[in-house]
Amino acid sequence: MNDVELWRELGQQFRVDSIRTAAAAKSGHPSSGMSAADLMAVLVAKYLRCDFDNPDDLRNDKLVFSKGHASTLLYAIFRAVGAIDDEELLTYRQHGSRLEGHPTPVIPWVDVATGSLGQGLPIGVGMALGAKYLDRMPTRVWVLHGDSEMAEGSVWEAFEHAAYYKLDNLTAVLDVNRLGQRGETMVGWNLDAYRARAEAFGWHAIEIDGHDVETIDRAYAEAIETTDQPTVVIAKTIKGKGVSAVADKPGFHGKALDDADAAIAELGGKRDLEIEVTKPQGDPAPQPVAEERLELPKWQVGEEVATRLAYGEALKAVGAADGKVVGLDGEVSNSTYAEIFAKAHPERYFEMFIAEQQLVAAAVGLQTRGWKPFASTFAAFFSRAYDFIRMAAISQANLRLSGSHAGVSIGEDGPSQMALEDIAALRAVNGSAVLHPCDANQTARLVAEMAERDGISYLRTLRPATPVLYGPEEDFPIGGSKVPRSSDEDEVAIVGAGITVHEALKAAEALAKEGVQVRVIDAYSIKPIDEEMLRDAADATGGRIVTVEDHWAEGGLGEAVLAAFADAEERPRVKVLAVSGMPHSGKPAELLAAAGIDADHIAQAARELVGAPVRA
Amino acid sequence: MNDVELWRELGQQFRVDSIRTAAAAKSGHPSSGMSAADLMAVLVAKYLRCDFDNPDDLRNDKLVFSKGHASTLLYAIFRAVGAIDDEELLTYRQHGSRLEGHPTPVIPWVDVATGSLGQGLPIGVGMALGAKYLDRMPTRVWVLHGDSEMAEGSVWEAFEHAAYYKLDNLTAVLDVNRLGQRGETMVGWNLDAYRARAEAFGWHAIEIDGHDVETIDRAYAEAIETTDQPTVVIAKTIKGKGVSAVADKPGFHGKALDDADAAIAELGGKRDLEIEVTKPQGDPAPQPVAEERLELPKWQVGEEVATRLAYGEALKAVGAADGKVVGLDGEVSNSTYAEIFAKAHPERYFEMFIAEQQLVAAAVGLQTRGWKPFASTFAAFFSRAYDFIRMAAISQANLRLSGSHAGVSIGEDGPSQMALEDIAALRAVNGSAVLHPCDANQTARLVAEMAERDGISYLRTLRPATPVLYGPEEDFPIGGSKVPRSSDEDEVAIVGAGITVHEALKAAEALAKEGVQVRVIDAYSIKPIDEEMLRDAADATGGRIVTVEDHWAEGGLGEAVLAAFADAEERPRVKVLAVSGMPHSGKPAELLAAAGIDADHIAQAARELVGAPVRA
Repeated sequence: MNDVELWRELGQQFRVDSIRTAAAAKSGHPSSGMSAADLMAVLVAKYLRCDFDNPDDLRNDKLVFSKGHASTLLYAIFRAVGAIDDEELLTYRQHGSRLEGHPTPVIPWVDVATGSLGQGLPIGVGMALGAKYLDRMPTRVWVLHGDSEMAEGSVWEAFEHAAYYKLDNLTAVLDVNRLGQRGETMVGWNLDAYRARAEAFGWHAIEIDGHDVETIDRAYAEAIETTDQPTVVIAKTIKGKGVSAVADKPGFHGKALDDADAAIAELGGKRDLEIEVTKPQGDPAPQPVAEERLELPKWQVGEEVATRLAYGEALKAVGAADGKVVGLDGEVSNSTYAEIFAKAHPERYFEMFIAEQQLVAAAVGLQTRGWKPFASTFAAFFSRAYDFIRMAAISQANLRLSGSHAGVSIGEDGPSQMALEDIAALRAVNGSAVLHPCDANQTARLVAEMAERDGISYLRTLRPATPVLYGPEEDFPIGGSKVPRSSDEDEVAIVGAGITVHEALKAAEALAKEGVQVRVIDAYSIKPIDEEMLRDAADATGGRIVTVEDHWAEGGLGEAVLAAFADAEERPRVKVLAVSGMPHSGKPAELLAAAGIDADHIAQAARELVGAPVRA
Repeated sequence: MNDVELWRELGQQFRVDSIRTAAAAKSGHPSSGMSAADLMAVLVAKYLRCDFDNPDDLRNDKLVFSKGHASTLLYAIFRAVGAIDDEELLTYRQHGSRLEGHPTPVIPWVDVATGSLGQGLPIGVGMALGAKYLDRMPTRVWVLHGDSEMAEGSVWEAFEHAAYYKLDNLTAVLDVNRLGQRGETMVGWNLDAYRARAEAFGWHAIEIDGHDVETIDRAYAEAIETTDQPTVVIAKTIKGKGVSAVADKPGFHGKALDDADAAIAELGGKRDLEIEVTKPQGDPAPQPVAEERLELPKWQVGEEVATRLAYGEALKAVGAADGKVVGLDGEVSNSTYAEIFAKAHPERYFEMFIAEQQLVAAAVGLQTRGWKPFASTFAAFFSRAYDFIRMAAISQANLRLSGSHAGVSIGEDGPSQMALEDIAALRAVNGSAVLHPCDANQTARLVAEMAERDGISYLRTLRPATPVLYGPEEDFPIGGSKVPRSSDEDEVAIVGAGITVHEALKAAEALAKEGVQVRVIDAYSIKPIDEEMLRDAADATGGRIVTVEDHWAEGGLGEAVLAAFADAEERPRVKVLAVSGMPHSGKPAELLAAAGIDADHIAQAARELVGAPVRA
């Protein structure tokens, strides 16, 4: 068999295997795999550079199925290259199988989960950034892209950034099969429209017939030869190609074929081609960057420093000690203070402009290559990338996020700039840590902790300067807490984090003058929360706790505290203070008061609890 | 003064007032207003059609400041048109003032909050859709757009949809002042790049000098004459134009000018021009569509029906009774069953394709015109639009969202398609309702309730069919709950919602065989939650509650229940069952078991609570 014959046969094998796997599972999206079968056949047989025996080799090309629902095709590839056998292929979508409905990194050859559309290309941008500018290796990133998902704005963030960063190591293979889940896309088979858009965004674009393997071959060769520009291969394809019962017909998305046997027969039957994928050549991956001793910045107790500033200073220091640390920011680095890192380590900083989806996606892509990205923007604007953060958890990504301008304490800019739901949103991410420091030294230590932690870590920083409470020698482990004020006679405990720790201390001062002793707990680690310290506080106070947060009540610090006691034998009475009513512009102190979370409100809540029956 | 002189003077007045307001507030973004001053001067003096005395007149043009940080310019306009006086202008950013740091609908002439960038144009698409296809009025939507925010993918969703829907009543005024918050944009002053992108997305594009009022005039005239296409006026401008200390210089974003007096003098001093804005002509707004008697679909107890299907049927019925109801979906209408509405009321249905930000933004835009949009997609994918939902609350929007495919009960498609954080995210939206029905009749009633409720309502529906528990005659008020099983001897209460109600009932059945009587509470209204019913259950069971949800524990049903008892005198012991560990593909029953939320796990938790000390 010559190359062309091989590619054609391999495409047919991919179609047959798509149908077989979906038939075994009685679900799946075989018709979506069938449109891209020839595109992938030429890719894996000739262009892909990958050692499937060593999936972690950084020299491997990356293949991202942005159209994750075409997983039958991906698994068909894995079979053809010998990564999985036919028996495993037919475990598709079964509980316990690695071959999930949409690809996840449960499989070693899948770097990131896809299936929420429009994420593969922005993540691919992150992979390509890492390969080109950090690893400086000839790794190529191939993204199989659906046409329906071109409607996602995140895709255009990727187009713009890939061109801006001249990612000539990135190739998008656009499978224009015309049909979405429920009907035709906005663009249909108007390939010229895609081409005009791609070119206007600075890409090299090639229009082809996605079932003509020789044309596909030439397009990939052209993509590889193109310098200083990413390339998109815009391929006209037919959904369900090769099976007359479904080809180019709406109504067959996401369904196993009604008559799989007939379809397989129409395609010429089952095949068992095995492909030897070319292994990557060239130098092995660079050695890990040597680590230096970490010298965190230090502040004196009593200094007034914004925790966002401490973030920037600390990240600079962590980046000096650990050459794997990378900074990214969404065009607000002079507010988040990521600029301090950027000035110190410009070769490891990427400006992501006002594109928070791409910001997070780039971080996800970078960490697939072992880098340690810290991505920052206003905390409120991570809500723009929430789907990417959710998916990053499925991708088993090690992701560090830093959100500044938390809560009403930002003051005059008003509610659009205030993060008031970020604690809830980030707590509800699987395996996340949610950290909210109240002073500069604490912030610095937590940044260092984040650098060493796997999974998704989120740091919430403050706009205004706050007094330094803790000396630079203190430890702040993730999962810990601090007790900046306590006595043997505490009648109530106040649990705060961030700005509200300072308000709680003011309230405690006022209450002390009234003869009421109050314990103040700084729950800087909102998730995981320090349950032991909370239990101690409940015991010491006879079960009287006030929680106070610059955030909505739902899903925030108060509920985290309640959850810690949910089925404990002894459960404290908890007054949850949180932002009530939509805030407006004003001075921070005015807004804390209006929200009901300043020292006066805390003191009043504590007074109400003192002497109140904890259980009638 | 002739027109041209007037426009020039008005532009200078807008600059001076931008500087004055920021100086009074000692904060703000005057330089961002100054770049667009001439663009807005010509617009309000000649083209805008608005009766500022009647802001709710549907004939008014809409002016959306997508670059919401340029609020000084917007308020300068309001002063020039007589909507506010000079004294109020200088209350900018003070607590209690209507003139917030970023515009919000606290001011009658502001329809939606802006300040999270890249939202104004997608919302403008919704307004223009409503005006053109529903109201069928000549209202024009003008969106002042920043150049930095062109990096947001949501903007390109808007570009694509506006062209697809031929929104010739929409004009974007792109203020290309080159400078973002921290430096130059990716595109700088390359107006041709913006033009190529806009044209590739199907828009009419006009490049102009944004400080040449005669050219601006001609561009707006051309925009109005353009049919079947939206128009973008791409204006080259200078940030801080007119004041040499700041003009075209980085480092002056978001700051009051250092020497306001000198700047005002350089601009020729304060002016007090008053502009008579042309009032809208044409027919008054159409009369409200007559309401018919609502005939909800009905199902028999014991039938097996997916709640997502009930959503589609109910929305069709609600739409028949109330002509203001509009349906939108994100290319999954055959999964969410919005297609049932679409087929019944095609003239009130908009396909938004796979663009969830535009989906929600269109709904926000439509509701500014009094329509009642219901927007649906997979519940997991509303996470893509979370920033838009957050901002919709600040916009005081009446928004109905329906998310299908909740939790692990979806089965084989795997975690990317499972909503597991949506309850947490939506609970943390100010003023929201979070509804999660377990059967078809309940779903139908809740859809009807949502249509009558102001604020943001979220309905969470299930993929699999579930048995109908309740007769069609039963009421399901928002804020209520149901008790499908109870006795005088209940030893423990199980609180579920959606799929877990059915699991709870199975567990109760099993426990009854062991002689343990269990109360089952269907908390279909997770927010607001029925605190009275929960208290009754706690009282009846001696304070023993199991909560169970197909969702992560954080911010979900369990924490909502805990919050209901937080500072109650008597607080039950609550075992919170929620999804533990990342789910994979599998059958729904397998996944409910693996997640620890099926009947067996519920029964075991209940057994552990029975007889356990509630307080030692």
